Parts: sequence; structure tokens; C-alpha cells
Amino acid sequence: MRPGATDVAALDAADPLRRTRDLFELPPGIIYLDGNSLGPPPKAVFAALDQAVRHEWGAGLIRSWNDAGWFTLTDTLGDRIGHLIGAAAGQTVVTDSTSINVYKALHAALTLRPDRRTIIAERDSFPTDLYMAESVAASRQDVTLRLAAEPSSLTSLIDGETAVVLLNHVDYRTGALRDIPDLTSCAHAAGAVVIWDLCHSAGVVPIDLDACGADFAVGCAYKYLNGGPGAPAFVFAARRHHDSIVQPLSGWWTHDRPFAMESNHRPAAGIRRMLCGTQPILSLRALGAALDLLDGVEIAAIRRKSLGLTRLFMELVEPLCSAFGGRIVTPRADNERGSQVAIAHENAYAVVQALIARGVIGDFRAPDIMRFGFAPLYLSYREVVDAAATLQDVLEGGAWRDPKFAARALVT
Amino acid sequence: MRPGATDVAALDAADPLRRTRDLFELPPGIIYLDGNSLGPPPKAVFAALDQAVRHEWGAGLIRSWNDAGWFTLTDTLGDRIGHLIGAAAGQTVVTDSTSINVYKALHAALTLRPDRRTIIAERDSFPTDLYMAESVAASRQDVTLRLAAEPSSLTSLIDGETAVVLLNHVDYRTGALRDIPDLTSCAHAAGAVVIWDLCHSAGVVPIDLDACGADFAVGCAYKYLNGGPGAPAFVFAARRHHDSIVQPLSGWWTHDRPFAMESNHRPAAGIRRMLCGTQPILSLRALGAALDLLDGVEIAAIRRKSLGLTRLFMELVEPLCSAFGGRIVTPRADNERGSQVAIAHENAYAVVQALIARGVIGDFRAPDIMRFGFAPLYLSYREVVDAAATLQDVLEGGAWRDPKFAARALVT
Repeated sequence: MRPGATDVAALDAADPLRRTRDLFELPPGIIYLDGNSLGPPPKAVFAALDQAVRHEWGAGLIRSWNDAGWFTLTDTLGDRIGHLIGAAAGQTVVTDSTSINVYKALHAALTLRPDRRTIIAERDSFPTDLYMAESVAASRQDVTLRLAAEPSSLTSLIDGETAVVLLNHVDYRTGALRDIPDLTSCAHAAGAVVIWDLCHSAGVVPIDLDACGADFAVGCAYKYLNGGPGAPAFVFAARRHHDSIVQPLSGWWTHDRPFAMESNHRPAAGIRRMLCGTQPILSLRALGAALDLLDGVEIAAIRRKSLGLTRLFMELVEPLCSAFGGRIVTPRADNERGSQVAIAHENAYAVVQALIARGVIGDFRAPDIMRFGFAPLYLSYREVVDAAATLQDVLEGGAWRDPKFAARALVT
Repeated sequence: MRPGATDVAALDAADPLRRTRDLFELPPGIIYLDGNSLGPPPKAVFAALDQAVRHEWGAGLIRSWNDAGWFTLTDTLGDRIGHLIGAAAGQTVVTDSTSINVYKALHAALTLRPDRRTIIAERDSFPTDLYMAESVAASRQDVTLRLAAEPSSLTSLIDGETAVVLLNHVDYRTGALRDIPDLTSCAHAAGAVVIWDLCHSAGVVPIDLDACGADFAVGCAYKYLNGGPGAPAFVFAARRHHDSIVQPLSGWWTHDRPFAMESNHRPAAGIRRMLCGTQPILSLRALGAALDLLDGVEIAAIRRKSLGLTRLFMELVEPLCSAFGGRIVTPRADNERGSQVAIAHENAYAVVQALIARGVIGDFRAPDIMRFGFAPLYLSYREVVDAAATLQDVLEGGAWRDPKFAARALVT
């Protein structure tokens, strides 16, 4: 079912997002299938950073905390991300890292359910979520962390003892997509609070947090939001919880009057109590320019193309998997996958390295997963076909057997 | 005792640091006395950020986590700051915010003294330190926070119940300098652990953490280190404590094998267990360029000039204070002050605004403090004289009485 050159050209010609690629800086000769790990720089970031450094920092100096709106960037950028995940203004802030925001959200959620004793998460969750949950559970007497071994066993663990359920919207390895409204309802029916980790879905999958009565969400801004390496993360807390939220990272930015310099803490009203301390403004400015690019692009259009790209890739690599001992572990049903395709293969690490050496950049996730992320804003159907062809070459020719592709890098 | 023009010219001509000013981007017509709050951009930051965005992020994409050393920037930058505070390599990382690092250090310190019950801090400490201490104490059964009302009463609070003492090296309001070796010895004699907050001293006051057997230190990188607005902070932990440190923000960057993606947490060896999650690389790159500027400059030379600048300023403004109801609250003894001069004045806020309107940028700290920071890398003795003259004009002429100077900004 490999499409002919004409078919692909037609798909690209009909793509309503074909022009957004020009807004990105991408190196020639590269097919970039790792935007699910680090999005490439929107070209507008260059000017935005130059403005931030020369004019805001250099000319404005300390005055820019007021005059350039630095102090409220957490909120203004938060609202813009909120718009992309279905959260009305005033419920999302950009701050700290995903790990730290998971920690805050877990504590805040436990405070909302002081009489309950378990945190539920998935064993295959992105590990940092588990490490934070392990730490939070250890810090609270009588709170334990229970892990679902399989996604299917998750709901059976949720009961009247469950305080909080911590879930990844998209499985970082398989690309499997969870149903936010359904699982949120399920947890709420048991009286539990839910924290959604949107790292692998924000900006590429339609999300409507307010509509499904979500409690908390966290996510990073450097994947499909293209905010730059290590861009600060976001955290959402539903407005109805704001007055009750207590989280232990109560730094001065969470104070009701941070510049009153009071010696006792009094939490700010609203979502700012999910902040902590001073944020890295230059990285926030890069993120702001990246979010500009998403203005006026419908997430629904992004989703349609995302599904088209991943569907085409799976069609193309399926016969390769049959022939070379691989297995697509990403769900085939459109409503069950995010924007990546994962292939389990015994030699996944070396195959990924051989692909990178040929200009097709995906990544590896232990123990045996090749991940290919499909970012609709800058990828073409032509690139999908070319990437699959390169994978075919690598598998057929055995290029991955070169010993140089076996040596593990620090960051895999 | 106002120096004549010739004296000031001689001081500037003899200044061994007179050429480092050219390495900074400073707007014309401004005398910048707020480098104790936000240092100005070193010019090298422009090229470093351009390189980071276009080459590392744009051309290198995900590969730069390995190829450009992004993943270990926390350590490489940490060691460079460690060099400035007397810490041998492998004991300092750049990560997160000061508030968050205080939180980690407090928990780690309590873990080292599980049988003890108090955290001691100063009531006039920078508030975020107190808020974090309040939060940590609340999270541990039987741990209480005790505040010293006066610096002089601090040591009398330290006893056999004291687990940890949290101290600011320089008082952010008065500029008073604490004696690190002396207070560390005092706390150690009682069996307590000490956390030093170096926000207002790193890069401008000589510090020798290893020599005095320091336990923990934290600090920010955007004041005298000129790392840029909200640059990530640093945390130091003495090597002898590494194997015993437990801190609850155990994100994936603190894991022994972060890319093994194990579901259980196993802390990394060494200082990396004081990290948490992914860091903002662009802001770290700006900091790296700023630290380049300090290479080859002796902190002792910076300190000598710092004392000269603050001494001169106090001499010049003393008579103004007598005449206009102000009071210098910064210690006169060289070994008792950091690198700022603070004046208490009933109308401090309006006076500071009137000064800023005339191009002399200091800042205000509630309730009644005008702060003037003196950064030896870019300030001249001539500017000190001009700043004092401007203060004289504002006080004598009553310009601060203009109602426009009364309206409080969001960030003061």
C-alpha cells in the first residue's frame, strides 16, 4: 500500500499547513522526527531573543520587570497555553519544570482529599512522574503509591481510597492516547482528583480541560510547542480548586504581596499560588515567540494532519516490521494514538543511530523502542515516505550492524 | 569630605578593573546601581545566545543534548560558580530557582540530623527563604522554625536541638555581611548543619566554602554574576554529605541512570542528586557567557573596588542623610558590609523613583529602604560621585514630592 509519488505530491499540495514549515529553522538534508522530544526553533525566536536581550535586559535593565511585563510572563504565557488545552484564562501558569509541577500538583491534590490514602499511576508512566509520586507518598503518613501494570487495569485500581490519579495523556513510549473525559469522569465518580501530564499532547492533540471538568494538568513546552530546549513547563489548576490549594513550594512568587517582603507566607489568590520563585525570562521569551506561531492555527487541523502522517508511516513500515523482526506498538485506531509511531525492535538503539547518520532523526527509548514523532507544522507527507524508505535501506542493508552505532550516548 | 574632580579622576585612572566596563552593554545616560538585583548583559551574551539558538538548537536539534553538552551544563556551570565561591569541582550545580534550592537543601540538611527538631533563620532574611523554611517545617512532624529577631540573637538560638541554620551571607536590605567561617563554626560546634544563601555575595565578595567546612549553599546567578533575568540558581552541597543526601524533588535528572527509564528512583552519585528536572538551556547559555567575563578577574580585586565604591558613596551621602532625615543602615566597617549601601528614609519609595527618572537606578525595599548596589565590574568612582550629587538634587529640590513618584509599581 505504498503510495506513489503522485499520491504523496497530491497530499502535500492539499495540506492546509504546508506553509507553516517556512516559519521554522530546519537544517537542510534532515528529516526531523523528534519534535516529540525537542521541537525545532521557530524563526521568530531569533528576533524575540535579540529584543529580549538587547532592549529589555540591556536597555530596560531592572525596569523591565514592570515595563516589559516580565513579572507576569508566567501568567500571560500560561493563558496562551491554556487556550491550546481548553482552559479559560487564569488557570494556567508557565513555571519551573514538569517534574516540579507534578510535585506541586500531587501535594495540592492530596490537600483536596485529606481523608484518602492512595495515589494511582501507571507503571509505564514517564519515570519522573513516578519518582515525584514516590517522593510525595513517602512524605505523607499513610499515603501509598499504587501502580497499574497495564493501562487496562488502571480503572480497577481507582476506589474510595483513591486521592489522586496521575496519568499521561500520551504514553511516551508507545504513543497510546488516553481518553481524558472518560478517565476524568471515572476518577471523579470515585471521588478522586486527576492530574494529567500533557507533555506529549499539548499543541498537537485537541484537549478541552474545562469541558471535562479537569482538576490539574502539567506539561512541557519544548516538544510540540517548540519553546526551546528545557523551556519552562506549565501547570493548570481548575479555578474551583484555587482557594483550597496548598502546595509546599511556597516561594515568594506565590505570596499575596511578594514585594511587601513579609516574613510570613500568605498565598496569592488564584493560579499564582502554583508558582514558586523567579523564572528564566530569556527562555520564556523564546517560548512566547514559539506560541505566536500557533496563533491562528486550529489544533483540529494539526490533529487531522498528524493522524494522516502517522497513518501513512505505519502503512509504510508495517511490511518492514514483518520482514525484519520489528513490531509497531502504537495503536492503529486514530482515536487511540498521539502524534508518534513507536516500533519495538531488538536492535532499536543501533537502528536509530544508523537512521540519524542518514539524516532521519528519531530517538530511542529503553529498552527496545524506536520513536518517530510527527509534528504537522513542519513535516510533509514526502518526508514520511522518505523516512520509511531510509528505514527500509537501514534494515535491508544491515547498516545498523556497524559497531559505531552500538555505543550508547549519555542522552539516548 | 566630598572628593574633588581630580581625586575621582585619579581613583578611576588607578582602577585595575576600569576596562571591564567595556565588556557590558549599558544604556547611555544611566548610572546603574541595581546590579545587586539584576546585573546588565555582558556583550558576549548576544553571540552566545545566537550560537545556542541557531547552531545548537537549530542545526543540532535534539543531538545537542549530547553534542553541545546541554545535559551536563548544570555541572559545568556549577563548577565555574563553585570556583568563585571556594568550592572544589563536583559540589555545585546550576539548576532551578533559589527558592527551590533552599527547599532541597533544607530537606537534605534535616535528613542529616534526623534526631533534631529546629530550623533557625533570621526574621529579616530574604522572605522566600523563610517561606520555604516555614513549609519544610510544616511538613515534618516535630520540626519547628525559630526566627532570630536580631542578628545578634542568632547564635544564642543555636543549641543541641538545632538541625539546620539558614543564613543570608548579605542582608538584602541593610547590606550587612555575615561571617561565614565564624557562624559555620558556631553551628558546627552545636552539631548543626548550615545553609548559606549567597544571592547577594556570589561574584562580589570572596567566599571559601571548602576552607570553612561549609555544608550547603544556594544563590542566584542574575545579580553580581550577570547571568540574565531569572537565570537558574545554584546549589552547593559538600562532598562529604553526598552519599547521605535525600531531597524530595527527586526528578529524573537526579536518577542514577536517567535514560534507563526505570520506574523506581535510585539517586545519582554525587551532586546531581540535588537537581530535579530539565533545565532552561537558553538561559543557561546566557549565564555561561556571563561567567566567561569573570574568568581571570580576581574576586579580591573586585572586593577591593567594591569597598572603595561603597565607602565613597557613604561619605558623600552622610551629610545628605543628616540634612534630610535619612539614615545609612549599612555597616561602616569594611568587613561588615557586602556591596550595597542602604538608606532608610520615610519617603524612600518616591525618592528612588525620582532618582530613576534622573537616570540613577537604585531600588526600594519595603518598608523604607533605598538600596544602591555597587558592581565593580562596570561602575566608576565618577559615577558614585554623580549618583550622590543626583540624590542631593532630588532631596534638596524636593523633586520626589511629585505625585507621579508615589504610585507603586507591581515590582518595586
